[in-house]
Amino acid sequence: MSRDALSFPSSSAKPIEHYLPESTGLARPLYPHVTLTYATSLDANLSLSPGVQTALSGTQSKAMTHFLRSKHAAILIGAGTAIADDPSLNCRIEGVGGYGGPGLEGQPRPVVLDPKGRWKVNAESKVVKLAKEGRGLGPWVIGAQDTPIEESKHRALTDAGGSYITLPTDSSGRFDWANILNILGTKGITSVMVEGGGSVINELLSPRAIGLVDSVIVTIAPVWLGKNGVQVCPDERKNEGGVKMSVGKLKDVRWLPLGEDVVLCGRPAWQ
Amino acid sequence: MSRDALSFPSSSAKPIEHYLPESTGLARPLYPHVTLTYATSLDANLSLSPGVQTALSGTQSKAMTHFLRSKHAAILIGAGTAIADDPSLNCRIEGVGGYGGPGLEGQPRPVVLDPKGRWKVNAESKVVKLAKEGRGLGPWVIGAQDTPIEESKHRALTDAGGSYITLPTDSSGRFDWANILNILGTKGITSVMVEGGGSVINELLSPRAIGLVDSVIVTIAPVWLGKNGVQVCPDERKNEGGVKMSVGKLKDVRWLPLGEDVVLCGRPAWQ
Ligand SMILES: NC(=O)c1ccc[n+]([C@@H]2O[C@H](COP(=O)([O-])OP(=O)(O)OC[C@H]3O[C@@H](n4cnc5c(N)ncnc54)[C@H](OP(=O)(O)O)[C@@H]3O)[C@@H](O)[C@H]2O)c1
Ligand SMILES: NC(=O)c1ccc[n+]([C@@H]2O[C@H](COP(=O)([O-])OP(=O)(O)OC[C@H]3O[C@@H](n4cnc5c(N)ncnc54)[C@H](OP(=O)(O)O)[C@@H]3O)[C@@H](O)[C@H]2O)c1
Repeated sequence: MSRDALSFPSSSAKPIEHYLPESTGLARPLYPHVTLTYATSLDANLSLSPGVQTALSGTQSKAMTHFLRSKHAAILIGAGTAIADDPSLNCRIEGVGGYGGPGLEGQPRPVVLDPKGRWKVNAESKVVKLAKEGRGLGPWVIGAQDTPIEESKHRALTDAGGSYITLPTDSSGRFDWANILNILGTKGITSVMVEGGGSVINELLSPRAIGLVDSVIVTIAPVWLGKNGVQVCPDERKNEGGVKMSVGKLKDVRWLPLGEDVVLCGRPAWQ
Repeated sequence: MSRDALSFPSSSAKPIEHYLPESTGLARPLYPHVTLTYATSLDANLSLSPGVQTALSGTQSKAMTHFLRSKHAAILIGAGTAIADDPSLNCRIEGVGGYGGPGLEGQPRPVVLDPKGRWKVNAESKVVKLAKEGRGLGPWVIGAQDTPIEESKHRALTDAGGSYITLPTDSSGRFDWANILNILGTKGITSVMVEGGGSVINELLSPRAIGLVDSVIVTIAPVWLGKNGVQVCPDERKNEGGVKMSVGKLKDVRWLPLGEDVVLCGRPAWQ
């Protein structure tokens, strides 16, 4: 077994499986299965400060994240997280490709939303190094149609087996979530695990995007981080009468204690 | 059994008892046992908007709140909640005084922090009516030493068996939490359940007050309320080097699923 491989007990995995994409291998008509997953504090913070990586959850939660990655065709993050965390974005569960298993079996495709080309991906980026070592897939970067990628970044991506994809942006420089998922679907991605950070999560939870989310898996750690962190709090929603209402509810809910943390699994109720 | 009495199954009560005040009836030297309790959404909101009461948790969580009230000598809230919710602040668990039990046994003392006399307590206030019906104790209002209470409000309080207490305030018009607890202790209150709202909770979780908290019992509902709500998010904390750190952690943690919600029990780790 690989030195840094993780294991996630099947007793913990079993109750979560109900929320995972079906492994038929068939793409759904338009969009991949979308699992939104993140870890917060009790005051709904993802990190202490913007651009700071905060160890929120325990080792068991970490193993769960890697178990979840093994069950998805792709992992998606925003440029903010790519820049802040220099994340590995591979799957280190014992038995997947690169961690005891053959080839790259079970490794998810890393996808980074980077409309303005802010992420300085290069040969030293963890995700690139891991791909070159045969421990993960090369990343796909989604950029704006009118933003050409620098030659050196493009080389770092293609050398690692990754690629650069472009999408149109709206007047505020954003991709439409249906477009993002659609382009992934046309490239054979049947399921995507959205991992953060703050802007990505709050956008996906907003009324215009939440309908695209199939499952939500949230880890909550028994800690308060305090003001000025990166907080999960989507835009508010009002009914026709202008009265504020909840942005979204979960149905089919399970709470699974995991070490000191709890894992909440559910499906958006407005699906 | 009284029509509106609630029952909370002992299987649910058992794991929570570990966090409750000891029922020796002896006051601790200086301060009562403090249990901080509240219900939030996944985005850490207590209500949709300031001054709006939001039904967050299910019926089982409601019964738990009343069970907890039966285990404390007093319940404390801020003026904001008294004004917004016109709360009952009594205990409706089957078997306590007024709900099948003798006298006012098991009824907690309602305490309202109202330094500026903003709460218009009167004969129609729920808490006053319930006290007069023998279904709860009369409320204690804590006001600022330099703010005399209006005659009509004072009468409403005393008619219900309540009273008006004053405390010194600091330059920003706040009571010191040690003073609040100390005055309750000297009046024979051995345990107090702090129920909210936003300012009270965030103050108690702040570095200068958290040391006074013995237990925390938080209910989390699987819903997002969105921006502009009343949010739990205490002031940030920095170490000597000016680096931000978490405001507080819980130890001795239990997560108890209750209906669609989860109940987190713990003790502040810095005690
Ligand atoms: N606790 C956790 O579970 C967790 C997980 C991940 C990250 N984090 C933390 O979260 C923080 C980063 O959060 P963040 O909000 O700064 O960054 P983020 O959400 O990772 O990335 C945001 C950026 O991604 C791009 N983006 C997102 N949605 C887009 C859309 N629809 N169309 C076009 N571009 C889009 C935008 O780039 P442009 O600004 O260039 O347009 C946006 O600013 C870090 O501190 C990280 O450690 C925590
Ligand atoms: N979900 C829940 O568990 C829950 C529980 C309770 C309430 N709520 C909601 O919370 C909202 C109310 O929150 P809120 O923040 O407006 O009000 P709040 O916390 O109930 O009351 C705040 C007020 O209490 C007084 N106060 C608090 N701490 C004090 C101190 N140390 N010294 C002196 N005075 C102190 C101050 O009055 P002055 O401003 O007059 O100085 C302060 O403005 C409502 O929407 C309510 O429905 C939710």
